[in-house]
Amino acid sequence: MSTTGKQLFTTLTSDGTLTVEIVDSEFPDPTGNQVLVKMEAAPINPSDLAILTGAADFENAEYSPGKVVANMPEPFNSAAKARHDQRLPAGNEGAGTVVATGDSDMAKALMGQRVACVPGNAFSQYAIADAAMCLPLGDHSSEEGASSFVNPMTALGFAENARMDGQKAILHTVGASNLGQMLVKICQEDDLALVNIVRKQDQVDLLKGLGAEHVVNSSDDDFMDQLKSAIDTTDAFYGFDPIGGGKMIDSCFKAMEQVAVSKMTEYSRYGSNQAKRMFIYGRLDFAPTTLTPSYGFGWTLSGWLLTPFLQQAGMETMMRMRQRVIDNLTTTFASSYKTKVDLEAMLTKDAILDYRQMKTGEKYLVTPWG
Amino acid sequence: MSTTGKQLFTTLTSDGTLTVEIVDSEFPDPTGNQVLVKMEAAPINPSDLAILTGAADFENAEYSPGKVVANMPEPFNSAAKARHDQRLPAGNEGAGTVVATGDSDMAKALMGQRVACVPGNAFSQYAIADAAMCLPLGDHSSEEGASSFVNPMTALGFAENARMDGQKAILHTVGASNLGQMLVKICQEDDLALVNIVRKQDQVDLLKGLGAEHVVNSSDDDFMDQLKSAIDTTDAFYGFDPIGGGKMIDSCFKAMEQVAVSKMTEYSRYGSNQAKRMFIYGRLDFAPTTLTPSYGFGWTLSGWLLTPFLQQAGMETMMRMRQRVIDNLTTTFASSYKTKVDLEAMLTKDAILDYRQMKTGEKYLVTPWG
Repeated sequence: MSTTGKQLFTTLTSDGTLTVEIVDSEFPDPTGNQVLVKMEAAPINPSDLAILTGAADFENAEYSPGKVVANMPEPFNSAAKARHDQRLPAGNEGAGTVVATGDSDMAKALMGQRVACVPGNAFSQYAIADAAMCLPLGDHSSEEGASSFVNPMTALGFAENARMDGQKAILHTVGASNLGQMLVKICQEDDLALVNIVRKQDQVDLLKGLGAEHVVNSSDDDFMDQLKSAIDTTDAFYGFDPIGGGKMIDSCFKAMEQVAVSKMTEYSRYGSNQAKRMFIYGRLDFAPTTLTPSYGFGWTLSGWLLTPFLQQAGMETMMRMRQRVIDNLTTTFASSYKTKVDLEAMLTKDAILDYRQMKTGEKYLVTPWG
Repeated sequence: MSTTGKQLFTTLTSDGTLTVEIVDSEFPDPTGNQVLVKMEAAPINPSDLAILTGAADFENAEYSPGKVVANMPEPFNSAAKARHDQRLPAGNEGAGTVVATGDSDMAKALMGQRVACVPGNAFSQYAIADAAMCLPLGDHSSEEGASSFVNPMTALGFAENARMDGQKAILHTVGASNLGQMLVKICQEDDLALVNIVRKQDQVDLLKGLGAEHVVNSSDDDFMDQLKSAIDTTDAFYGFDPIGGGKMIDSCFKAMEQVAVSKMTEYSRYGSNQAKRMFIYGRLDFAPTTLTPSYGFGWTLSGWLLTPFLQQAGMETMMRMRQRVIDNLTTTFASSYKTKVDLEAMLTKDAILDYRQMKTGEKYLVTPWG
């Protein structure tokens, strides 16, 4: 006995043809520690778009109901060689109701409950999930719980990682994002200083309204001076960036170094001894990251991903983080959405061209049952 | 009582005027653990050029005996703001004879001996040095001992650092440099695998002649395939680069990731879990470093400098490394020079335009007494 329902698949062939389509699928009965979740809500996160749309040309794609075929330009098609000709599901996280379970006690205890989950195929009417990774939502709706993993755990991960590394301040280059707003609240609760970079005055106002102390606007003429002043006040030599491409990381390292150098009593040709650390945790901009030779040798830039961080942090830390999320789901960790779409509407031209821009505060929520 | 002699100074004023000149100077009597060294030989290392010449325009400079005045273009002049209007000595390392000492036993024991030292003003007829950092050269000449710190300790530092980080292989992007050739021998002695990148066929031949197993030529059409094959064979996911600018680091990360992905059984949108690490330890190219989004998030790029590494490694490790250098000064750690110049000849147009190119195998040796 199996269950049938609609599911989204994305396939890139070696000639650069990307097909995203809604397919009637069979879902096997859950076994062991698995549960079958009837999915009710799933956010379209930036981390989903890498596989869902990538850098394909959706302006000139072929659209039909529940299906879109687009061209993936070079060098992106070659760079994605590892996925060529594989039919992949999409959707990291979502929420729904457990309608069948495997034999394990942990799985059986979830029967009939509404849960948040991380199945990897959340853009689907059903998904098999690991009971250990399901978070019972209690009285919360699926919409409230849909985004309870990726953004909340990432924002909490930044604070955890900073403390592990002995830091008392964090810099975040996209302060006004959904995740950025969570980080403002987390840092207030945890007594961590936070330097927020935003692009517009209304984002400055938004964060100030949340009680953020240090908000600098990259559109202002004196951006670098604002940034240096905030770093000087907070000692934020440790930052997170989801943009990746362009010069933002370079600007942060420059500002950090100039603050450190201003405190040195003697000139060093090698720059300051102040350790400067930045992490790239997303790729809102696919352009190359450019790093100029203007901040010595005391810097480190790394990629940052949630899953390896959680593995490093260990199960106990992860469970503590998840409990904190559920305890504050409608406050610190509340997400908001621009609009809701069903699986078919998700693949229309208007929707794709809109959500793939990943504009701050304009996230889409997929409701697979309409 | 003090000693007088000629010394090189470099001064950058805020309007972008760089003056490098030989000045008659007074050297104080050494105290405590200090020794006064009559300097006999000092190499011009890439790490000296940052302060000596920087990015200044020596093609159109004003040359007079023992003096050159050049313009420092933007953005380099502003980036060097921290040194503006300071008269700085230059020359990290060199060798000479101890002609006076402070009161300490360690200092007094060096009286009359030929030593290698790291005074920071080695382009000078005399220098005050810390006795603890002096290496008695025994029967070796000052020319043989002049380069016994920066390159040997840096190359040994790579091997030490790799072992500290649990690595069994190193990648080096400038295999045929003086330092690169030392690294070939060190890795053979220490049973570390080494992937050497070079730019020319005669450099391939040179390294093969030293017994290097993995040498890839970046000028070959199949460079990336050669590089991937060498990484695949050695598991060199850990590399050192003195170029800094341009795309070499990007190419290394790409090759590492493609090797890692080829061993994965399942596609991941986030790339491989293989940790990839590169260090920039120099700036042969002042252009920006460009990093493309083509190797997931499992990578880290850092600056690397010898002094902080030695501080981290501790005194015992440093002493073991120095002993290894002196024991193998004319074999593993031998340096060769294109030519010798005195302090005045060092500041002629022909010399500056030549040594600032930092060509492989064309290092200058300064002999301050002619």
